[in-house]
Amino acid sequence: MSAEELEGFLYAHFPEMEPRYYRVEKVADMFAQVRLKYDARHLRPGGTISGPSMMSLAHSAMYIAVLAMIGPVALAVTTNLNINFLRKPAQADIIAHARLLKLGKRLAVGEVTMFSEKDPDPVAHATVTYSIPPERNPA
Amino acid sequence: MSAEELEGFLYAHFPEMEPRYYRVEKVADMFAQVRLKYDARHLRPGGTISGPSMMSLAHSAMYIAVLAMIGPVALAVTTNLNINFLRKPAQADIIAHARLLKLGKRLAVGEVTMFSEKDPDPVAHATVTYSIPPERNPA
Amino acid sequence: MSAEELEGFLYAHFPEMEPRYYRVEKVADMFAQVRLKYDARHLRPGGTISGPSMMSLAHSAMYIAVLAMIGPVALAVTTNLNINFLRKPAQADIIAHARLLKLGKRLAVGEVTMFSEKDPDPVAHATVTYSIPPERNPA
Amino acid sequence: MSAEELEGFLYAHFPEMEPRYYRVEKVADMFAQVRLKYDARHLRPGGTISGPSMMSLAHSAMYIAVLAMIGPVALAVTTNLNINFLRKPAQADIIAHARLLKLGKRLAVGEVTMFSEKDPDPVAHATVTYSIPPERNPA
Repeated sequence: MSAEELEGFLYAHFPEMEPRYYRVEKVADMFAQVRLKYDARHLRPGGTISGPSMMSLAHSAMYIAVLAMIGPVALAVTTNLNINFLRKPAQADIIAHARLLKLGKRLAVGEVTMFSEKDPDPVAHATVTYSIPPERNPA
Repeated sequence: MSAEELEGFLYAHFPEMEPRYYRVEKVADMFAQVRLKYDARHLRPGGTISGPSMMSLAHSAMYIAVLAMIGPVALAVTTNLNINFLRKPAQADIIAHARLLKLGKRLAVGEVTMFSEKDPDPVAHATVTYSIPPERNPA
Repeated sequence: MSAEELEGFLYAHFPEMEPRYYRVEKVADMFAQVRLKYDARHLRPGGTISGPSMMSLAHSAMYIAVLAMIGPVALAVTTNLNINFLRKPAQADIIAHARLLKLGKRLAVGEVTMFSEKDPDPVAHATVTYSIPPERNPA
Repeated sequence: MSAEELEGFLYAHFPEMEPRYYRVEKVADMFAQVRLKYDARHLRPGGTISGPSMMSLAHSAMYIAVLAMIGPVALAVTTNLNINFLRKPAQADIIAHARLLKLGKRLAVGEVTMFSEKDPDPVAHATVTYSIPPERNPA
């Protein structure tokens, strides 16, 4: 699936992923890059992006990386997410780089590194596991 | 802090924790119980509570358990969250039981078990670590 | 499987789990209690039980809890382990309480709380996920 | 500290890290590469490297990456380790690439990717957090 097709699929299935906040910037083999727009809705006290917004971004970015490889499987379910918060984000967009470490028949595992725009040091790092339903290719 | 004081603090500091969705039901020694109301905004495809909503609930519930012990420290920051999604939630409220495993000078660590209302089997389980700022009692 | 049968199975299949170090003290529905004997081999600088020894204990204790429920399946494989180290252990045995949170067809997930003998505060807490092979009952 | 100095420090402080099993192959800015020799002691049923051996390797490799940056601080303690097991390792050495994501005053966080020798697909991936004692520079 292309970045545009993925955006369309996501906006249709996940009401919380509003187009004005999330952008699928790039998909490639075992990789997706997703941007979370800086917006008052995602802020925590102090004016930076909240922890839950970064968790949600990591979760979505990995889902996009999986979908880009196996096609639209809305029923793939997350089984585990682990996130380390590393630095206070800047008052700027967050860019997530999601990279699949494994795409198996039953499980997909990947890591997501998140950056504040224009800063080379990551603000957060997550690993995410998706369980892929057995009937993934019913056709 | 009492459950009511905690709710007031949270609503004031975290705009995303709207009173109609979150309720602090109980606080006790090293423990907090928080309810996430079932609402269209938190749903994923299939009509159940989304993963990000449960992550956000785990994150908030542990924060409340920490605040209840050390008082209003809006600057405590999450350093790690690990969540396992166990079962598809029912179309019902989610109740989170947050229990502190350690409350140290620098780190607070706890676990959060989440249940669909009226179901004894947990739908998700998380562990969360908060870093406590050195100047936590400046008064 | 009983505690004795489990010990026999483990010693036969896992050479590193020597009888003099590990004891399966109790098995019950979705639960196992395993003891790691205090011994020079498991120490870190300062004379306390090392992190790797506690990780290994958590891993084994959960495996035992799974085996006790589904029988000897040496091919069940760990997919994820997350551990938080909470306190410096005493110079004493470590007792692990492993509790299954979910025993599904494909995945088993549980949590392990570890204590120094005679101390009620946990020294470490882990969550562990095992993948159960599809052909789990070939007989 | 150089790779040789680190090996000397480790062998002296961690009796379980015997020279014949562990090799510090490379240290660089925020990075360490450590090899675990394939040996009967680290095997699980089926003849591959056991999960606990890979957890121990991840733990050591990150410790080495931290020591290489801040000098010999035997009292740095692990606070969290999360590991995803991705593939069955080959009957071969495991090489760990440990990369620091953050080296703060209080916490160091990094990720470790582990490979079977000669295979480009990772066999396991871990994130590790170390707490750095306040008195790290007593001089």
